[in-house]
Amino acid sequence: MTTSTPLPDFSHGAAYTRGRFVPIDGASIPITDWGFLRSDAAYDVVTVWDGAFFRLDAHLERFAASCRRFRLDPGIDDARIAQVLAECVRLSGLRRAYVEMIVTRGQPPWGSRDPRQAVNQFHAFAVPYVWIANEEQRARGLHLHLSGVPRIPSASVDARAKNYHWADLTQGLLEALDAGYDTVALGDGTGNVVEGPGFNVFCVNATGTIVTPASGVLEGVTRRTVIEIAAQLGMAVETRPLPATELRAAREVFLSTSAGGVLPITRVDGQPVGDGRIGRVTQQLIDTYWAWHQDPRYCTPVDYDTV
Amino acid sequence: MTTSTPLPDFSHGAAYTRGRFVPIDGASIPITDWGFLRSDAAYDVVTVWDGAFFRLDAHLERFAASCRRFRLDPGIDDARIAQVLAECVRLSGLRRAYVEMIVTRGQPPWGSRDPRQAVNQFHAFAVPYVWIANEEQRARGLHLHLSGVPRIPSASVDARAKNYHWADLTQGLLEALDAGYDTVALGDGTGNVVEGPGFNVFCVNATGTIVTPASGVLEGVTRRTVIEIAAQLGMAVETRPLPATELRAAREVFLSTSAGGVLPITRVDGQPVGDGRIGRVTQQLIDTYWAWHQDPRYCTPVDYDTV
Repeated sequence: MTTSTPLPDFSHGAAYTRGRFVPIDGASIPITDWGFLRSDAAYDVVTVWDGAFFRLDAHLERFAASCRRFRLDPGIDDARIAQVLAECVRLSGLRRAYVEMIVTRGQPPWGSRDPRQAVNQFHAFAVPYVWIANEEQRARGLHLHLSGVPRIPSASVDARAKNYHWADLTQGLLEALDAGYDTVALGDGTGNVVEGPGFNVFCVNATGTIVTPASGVLEGVTRRTVIEIAAQLGMAVETRPLPATELRAAREVFLSTSAGGVLPITRVDGQPVGDGRIGRVTQQLIDTYWAWHQDPRYCTPVDYDTV
Repeated sequence: MTTSTPLPDFSHGAAYTRGRFVPIDGASIPITDWGFLRSDAAYDVVTVWDGAFFRLDAHLERFAASCRRFRLDPGIDDARIAQVLAECVRLSGLRRAYVEMIVTRGQPPWGSRDPRQAVNQFHAFAVPYVWIANEEQRARGLHLHLSGVPRIPSASVDARAKNYHWADLTQGLLEALDAGYDTVALGDGTGNVVEGPGFNVFCVNATGTIVTPASGVLEGVTRRTVIEIAAQLGMAVETRPLPATELRAAREVFLSTSAGGVLPITRVDGQPVGDGRIGRVTQQLIDTYWAWHQDPRYCTPVDYDTV
């Protein structure tokens, strides 16, 4: 194919916004979209690993649920969303990608402040795979800080609807980074650990049971995957409030996220977890998590050749 | 002046973003800016009335405080911010305008999740003056709903730092609009009224005292103006928790906002406030609020002729 004008450069990633595919470097949303001005948006992130989406159906299902909870309408069905996401990946050429789908409120007619009068907008983008932990951190385990900043309660903003209300997480993260920790988990203000910026928290407690918070958290697809893997491996999992004291006394601590899967925590507020090394249960879950990425039941290959 | 290319059309408003002045219809922010993807932003709104900014210094001061609380840096000083805002207004030609200044986190280098590595971005725009209440609503008084959705607590997201965490307000607003009310106020989950979408709440209680919530709310410049006007008129004001029961039994209820000033509430959840008409104190505050717009102490005229 020859052309007289330069082809757009999708090598850093590709986005879909206002009905067009554009390079990620030039992708934007209107400054007047309430998705920005009121953080009135829902989103989801699915990953592509070695050329295939992982658990795409689960992410599309959760995205639809988030949209319903916030009364946002992507305006296109799941099949079309899947097409758009695949096209973003194909254009970028990325074999390992972090793929985000978003609905914003849009903007009501000038003068109206009625969200029901806005035309909601669908956006998406694919960028290189994002890791919450870098290679060194994955090898040694992350150092976690338990922050005193309470997570926004679900009574105010439903944590099950994936959203951009992150100021509390950002505040906690800045506090943790300043103090030399790698990342942070927030609590519920009554002594329980809740979640961190982009991840769910798990521990293998002092009696060997895997525990993860039941409520006030995003129902992560990776969290669900960990629970399913544990069941397959015959490990007991309890979903219930997780006291910070139980986490601090745990044998193992790990987090789950689409941005890296199962990631070990080997220190909490400077104290080693167990013997301070990546635990046996955590390692089994990590290994199985990546093994599932080769399982056709969970994989949707991207067709990179379509034109 | 003649030109061969069409001049940009600023008649709907003007924006400043990425260092350039552009028509509001084309103004955008990068989809990858954490100001959008994590609602990691602070903002302020100042109005222009009959060609002059109202209390510009107070808004610049509060904006700087919001930025400090979120560790965001506009990268330019107050004098330059004022210049940019004035230029947005001048380009739009608007004599009555709603003028917003914004700092977003920007984006750290790809792969980093450290907010400290991002280059913060300053944006601004001027659009036609926005009213929370339309003309009919201002004449009859607004019908308010007290929602059961609790406002995001300040322990999670500091309400004094003006921010876009509005999902709770949007949820409450949708509930109110569906039920036929004009707008909504949220509570603190323990029986006190807090604030609504873009406004502070006041009442003149059964004993004639003006009361407005002391904490968990934005420290509105219009709220401050009301308190100062009341002092000048010799009216007692108490800033303290405001129980919903006290509000429901009040003689008068009104709200304060840059988007309309002092706005009367004549019904709360369908029940008339007092005799259901705009109260005497509210009317005095409205009249004085607008009179102050002619007072040079509070006005900064826009120079519309600069080129």
